[in-house]
Amino acid sequence: MAKADIDTKIIELFKKNTGVFLSGEDISDILGCTRAAVWKHCEKLRDIGYDIEAVPHLGYRLKGIPDKMLPDEILYELDTVVIGQTIYTYTKTGSTNTLAYTLAEQGAPEGTVVIAEQQENGKGRLGRPWVSPPGGIYLSCIIKPTIAPNEIQEFTLVTALSVVDAVKEVTGIVPRIKWPNDIVINGKKVAGILTEMKAETDRIAFVVVGIGVNVNTAGRSLPSSATSLKEETGERVMRLDICRALIRNLDREYRSFREKGFRDARGRVIALSATIGKKVRVVSHIAVHEGTAVDIDEEGALVLKTTGDGIQRIVSGDVN
Amino acid sequence: MAKADIDTKIIELFKKNTGVFLSGEDISDILGCTRAAVWKHCEKLRDIGYDIEAVPHLGYRLKGIPDKMLPDEILYELDTVVIGQTIYTYTKTGSTNTLAYTLAEQGAPEGTVVIAEQQENGKGRLGRPWVSPPGGIYLSCIIKPTIAPNEIQEFTLVTALSVVDAVKEVTGIVPRIKWPNDIVINGKKVAGILTEMKAETDRIAFVVVGIGVNVNTAGRSLPSSATSLKEETGERVMRLDICRALIRNLDREYRSFREKGFRDARGRVIALSATIGKKVRVVSHIAVHEGTAVDIDEEGALVLKTTGDGIQRIVSGDVN
Repeated sequence: MAKADIDTKIIELFKKNTGVFLSGEDISDILGCTRAAVWKHCEKLRDIGYDIEAVPHLGYRLKGIPDKMLPDEILYELDTVVIGQTIYTYTKTGSTNTLAYTLAEQGAPEGTVVIAEQQENGKGRLGRPWVSPPGGIYLSCIIKPTIAPNEIQEFTLVTALSVVDAVKEVTGIVPRIKWPNDIVINGKKVAGILTEMKAETDRIAFVVVGIGVNVNTAGRSLPSSATSLKEETGERVMRLDICRALIRNLDREYRSFREKGFRDARGRVIALSATIGKKVRVVSHIAVHEGTAVDIDEEGALVLKTTGDGIQRIVSGDVN
Repeated sequence: MAKADIDTKIIELFKKNTGVFLSGEDISDILGCTRAAVWKHCEKLRDIGYDIEAVPHLGYRLKGIPDKMLPDEILYELDTVVIGQTIYTYTKTGSTNTLAYTLAEQGAPEGTVVIAEQQENGKGRLGRPWVSPPGGIYLSCIIKPTIAPNEIQEFTLVTALSVVDAVKEVTGIVPRIKWPNDIVINGKKVAGILTEMKAETDRIAFVVVGIGVNVNTAGRSLPSSATSLKEETGERVMRLDICRALIRNLDREYRSFREKGFRDARGRVIALSATIGKKVRVVSHIAVHEGTAVDIDEEGALVLKTTGDGIQRIVSGDVN
């Protein structure tokens, strides 16, 4: 058994015996290694951040896991079908989207996930930076849907649903979707999505969908238009929980999208929209549109009711 | 002066003095090299394929240029604004689109053109091969338009106009556009377009547009659904002329598209359509549609009139 495997097995053993002390002898018997090795591996796991209690005559028990992007922790009983079969994690990287894009070019399979705890060149939409200090989660995923490029906005909104659900599951807060790609709490950006793709005119080769979530990010490290889950809840939130929920939800939503298209998701996107019903100004590379946001159509476009009862369909732009 | 420069200068000199004999002494004076060097360079140019006549006491004159993808010949008085400022040419390559895509990833500027006389892994739409034997032209161009991915079909049709015009200018034959990306003569494919891109949801990072033209390709080297300009005209066609016309037309059409969008081009695309007015069956990854092609709309989609006067808008698919 490789040394890394022993670490994984020890943690699994602890998790299957929550709160229970396991003797060094029992552990060494089960894993087929020496008691000295058990002690050594427990020390190593402590260094990583695992809170392992050791009591003479009783043995070891796991009291806490570190809130770090450890593949073992992310993958533990994750049970996804498409997303997260392969996971790359980094303490720090340039941009998880750029990394995932390169992996996709090199043939990485659908579902490959790249996660970083910090980005040095985090990317937002339209070449803008995405402020990516420690405390956040920066996750990019390679997917290969059989869709045309003009269906990509639908997928971005499907991803937004995954993010909303992850935040809701872990914190109880229900954030809203700000078309086209942001997740907001009380109007402030708590997460954003950057969808990039390689495509032909009518077929996508691959998509890299990037999700940045401000989890425990300090308010002072963020732009004034942004917030974090910690700022909103008043307490630290386990990034690992958010990360696992994101992957699980994305797996579920993507499979549903693949089977049924945007139809099912659309109603939920509309219900969760922070934009619909509001007077907005949408600035795109072509034009500026003003009106009341009244719908998100079956292709994920924002529908505005403009002055004089005109209807304007917006496929891209910034909403103010 | 570098040796390659002397070749270029000699050819330029010949071209500016069409049909006229230039003495070795005159050439050596003008270019500032020895007469022996002039002789040596003329020999080298003959090896490349230039037909240079040498007559004692009269000197040299150019009687013919080789029909090869020589950068000097392609660029000579090309006078384009965007397309073809940088040109890479190959006798043989895997796929000019793949090569251009890699160059674009590495930051190659808009307008960069990759040309091959033969492709070993020529790519068609939807992962299909594009048969690319010698005799054809395989040209890919990097462009960086400020458009959203769903505007890319418009650009593919604008490119189709450039191809139609190039064939018309050089051979007098007016081919037709078979939506979404083929150029046909009497229903047989003479050229095809493969548009690939790197994009975000609402912004294109770059487009690689690939054009394959069957110029002097022997009929037996092509699928039965295809033809070549030589097959149709009964004589060899100068590939260089087609290539230069393609680049010039693409430059003009792209600049017009950039300024005015698809509006101007749409009427011409419709007039040149091989599809409109016909009963068609369109097979896409989502569904099969049947009806009469009645329009190409302002987004480049094919509009079908289906049974019972239904109207179906098709954004992708194969037309039969």
